[in-house]
Amino acid sequence: MPNNIPYKTYLDESEMPLKWYNLRADMKNKPAPLLNPGTGEPMKAEELEGVFCKDLVEQELDNDTQFFEIPDEIKEFYKMYRPSPLVRAYFLEKKLGTPAKIYYKFEGNNTSGSHKLNSSIAQAYYAKKQGLKGVTTETGAGQWGTALSMACSYFDLDCKVYMVKVSYEQKPFRREVMRTYGASVTPSPSMNTEIGKKINAEHPGTTGSLGCAISEAVEDAVTHEGYRYVLGSVLNQVLLHQSIIGLETKAALDKIGEKADIIIGCAGGGSNLGGLIAPFMGEKLRGENDYQIIAVEPQSCPSFTRGRYAYDFCDTGAICPLAKMYTLGSDFIPAPNHAGGLRYHGMSSILSQLYDDGLMEARTAAQTEVFEAAEEFARVEGILPAPESSHAIKVAIDEALKCKETGEEKTIVFGLTGTGYFDLVAYEKFHDGKMEDYIPTDEELEESLAKLPKVEEK
Amino acid sequence: MPNNIPYKTYLDESEMPLKWYNLRADMKNKPAPLLNPGTGEPMKAEELEGVFCKDLVEQELDNDTQFFEIPDEIKEFYKMYRPSPLVRAYFLEKKLGTPAKIYYKFEGNNTSGSHKLNSSIAQAYYAKKQGLKGVTTETGAGQWGTALSMACSYFDLDCKVYMVKVSYEQKPFRREVMRTYGASVTPSPSMNTEIGKKINAEHPGTTGSLGCAISEAVEDAVTHEGYRYVLGSVLNQVLLHQSIIGLETKAALDKIGEKADIIIGCAGGGSNLGGLIAPFMGEKLRGENDYQIIAVEPQSCPSFTRGRYAYDFCDTGAICPLAKMYTLGSDFIPAPNHAGGLRYHGMSSILSQLYDDGLMEARTAAQTEVFEAAEEFARVEGILPAPESSHAIKVAIDEALKCKETGEEKTIVFGLTGTGYFDLVAYEKFHDGKMEDYIPTDEELEESLAKLPKVEEK
Repeated sequence: MPNNIPYKTYLDESEMPLKWYNLRADMKNKPAPLLNPGTGEPMKAEELEGVFCKDLVEQELDNDTQFFEIPDEIKEFYKMYRPSPLVRAYFLEKKLGTPAKIYYKFEGNNTSGSHKLNSSIAQAYYAKKQGLKGVTTETGAGQWGTALSMACSYFDLDCKVYMVKVSYEQKPFRREVMRTYGASVTPSPSMNTEIGKKINAEHPGTTGSLGCAISEAVEDAVTHEGYRYVLGSVLNQVLLHQSIIGLETKAALDKIGEKADIIIGCAGGGSNLGGLIAPFMGEKLRGENDYQIIAVEPQSCPSFTRGRYAYDFCDTGAICPLAKMYTLGSDFIPAPNHAGGLRYHGMSSILSQLYDDGLMEARTAAQTEVFEAAEEFARVEGILPAPESSHAIKVAIDEALKCKETGEEKTIVFGLTGTGYFDLVAYEKFHDGKMEDYIPTDEELEESLAKLPKVEEK
Repeated sequence: MPNNIPYKTYLDESEMPLKWYNLRADMKNKPAPLLNPGTGEPMKAEELEGVFCKDLVEQELDNDTQFFEIPDEIKEFYKMYRPSPLVRAYFLEKKLGTPAKIYYKFEGNNTSGSHKLNSSIAQAYYAKKQGLKGVTTETGAGQWGTALSMACSYFDLDCKVYMVKVSYEQKPFRREVMRTYGASVTPSPSMNTEIGKKINAEHPGTTGSLGCAISEAVEDAVTHEGYRYVLGSVLNQVLLHQSIIGLETKAALDKIGEKADIIIGCAGGGSNLGGLIAPFMGEKLRGENDYQIIAVEPQSCPSFTRGRYAYDFCDTGAICPLAKMYTLGSDFIPAPNHAGGLRYHGMSSILSQLYDDGLMEARTAAQTEVFEAAEEFARVEGILPAPESSHAIKVAIDEALKCKETGEEKTIVFGLTGTGYFDLVAYEKFHDGKMEDYIPTDEELEESLAKLPKVEEK
């Protein structure tokens, strides 16, 4: 163990962050506001409060407050599964023969299997505080639905999850975990909502989509007294809560006397990446330190690298506000890709603005090379990574191998967002040589981008 | 947080145990030796070395050495996933309203999902050290096979796993994890071995059994140059390696100034229970401290509570040595019970002797009440427990509720051996009200016990 740096660094509970960090406060160019799709005007708090919890709307709209106190109830819950370890990947370094130092922040040691719990517990708390009966949401891969079920069970809130039908049928185990936590899980499109009925009538036998499940969950919330809709990614509030990942990472690095050179995270809607990089990007924005920050997205769903920075719908039903983001068009249907958590057509407005300002870079990774990296990692580091997380592993390995060539001793930090226990169908395809890569054609992207809503920014 | 006791206590890496503790050294009545089924004489080292690795045979037979140095290579590997946390179950205590303090040692934070890795890495190390090509084993529930695959991948050893056919077919995900680690997984009975062919011929379409898979794995090892057979439970060597669980538990309790009153572990073959209780039982044997020690076994496979203390075969093929243990008879077929890891007809010789000497007690738990406890635990403690581990949870809750009645502030420690991500078919049955309890009849047990081998102890 060189330099006496342990394999795993855990903060003491007394060293855990007491506040979430709001990156927007340090951004010169603020993320673009959500717009009312009818009027084209920025959404007002009153408008959003019909859909979202009151305190969360406040967090959503606040671009100025640098830190938000974490309520005691949430800090207590965090102690159930946090602090998460910052792991020195000594075994991987040895395998690669790199002079680089590799660290990963591992968020998978809880039953939801991912970092999603960091925000679900916050959102459930504010719903309870507001005296609500329950919340609704959608889930694709199932990590967010599981995390929300756990949080709602803790605060004794009703939890209604609309699960994309194909996942509901193909991932019965995910569904059972949610049921263990008392959630009701409905395959989407369902007959519970008007939009579900309409889609079922128009497309009999459809296996559903994330965009459709969002629309159903929102409709369910706004048509039932005492319910609100909650979302696991993309929104500013989610990135605020997820800043706990980056804050702990930074504190652990400081504790062992390390400074990161490169920070890498996978990017779907941006919940993990935005949380992981928050304090580092803050230092960069304030001119205190520089970091190379890399977002990794699937080749099959390349919002940053091949999308357009524009206002777009968040859902296919077009009942949510418009968000300005790097998008492939809300009509874009990502090809079957087992990193279900990265199959979203758009990207967090905060991250989109930072990327547009040249403060971070983005890369794509092909599915097969992601699974190669996942397996290489699993064999030496003893963790079976989620396909989403493995996008970051892939690029971390690439960067470590570059250091091997140049002899540079860079410090690489990446986010290992979760475990792959529910992704073994994908691993099986990979082992059997049946996994295929998919690159959307230019024509395909042109077609979906042509349908972007016409919005005049005011 | 009363008394400033943290939710989770991690030892520093510098505080991790450097030696395994051999409980046998402190036992007045030593566990009975393995016997040669042909001669009835105690097995000699030379005889065992045809089946097992040399160093492991030495550990198996040594009833005197109190501590064994953990080799550096194993200590390094342990740092990949150890120390495991000792968790204060504040949330469970609050839910139960008990004055008792509840702690659990959680062994599930690694991809094998259980404590089995503690011994598999040791066994793989000694196989490598001996210059072997590989090892063979059997697996039922799949935890041991997964753990061995990880260990063999690390030391670049060939790993052949005979997986009970019904599990192979019903648990394809377990199989995929093993394949991720490069193991070859064969459904048993197979056509690879003479005994497999014989069983397939006699029972066409059989879905296999653990006893049969053991026989196949042993035959495969002894008929291939450079291979040995390894086992995940029951044997003395396994309990020696698993003492790391108890040693860490004891060290963590000492660190926070706690003394356990009651120690609870689930018991199948005894690998977890024997490891968890080792240092505590040691103090008890040496008269330094007293502890109430409770083994919990499934009502459907009650070796301690309804078995006989006698010499018996370890496998159905009767090619392994005879072991003296609490047994239901090697012919006993446990009813379908989802705690696959506890479905063994016998029990570790060490634990059998301790139980016979009145140094520990044993209780049974019915499957449905085990799952009730599992769900209650999952909802407040945020970990989805394995069915095996949940036997210990059930009795920990019972004891905590007794304290609630009497007002006693006992300190309860139990072993949470693993996670239930691969047991969701069982959770689903439980949620759907389709889970059944099963109590073997007296006649059934009489019948299988009547077939115990006649052994004259010398």
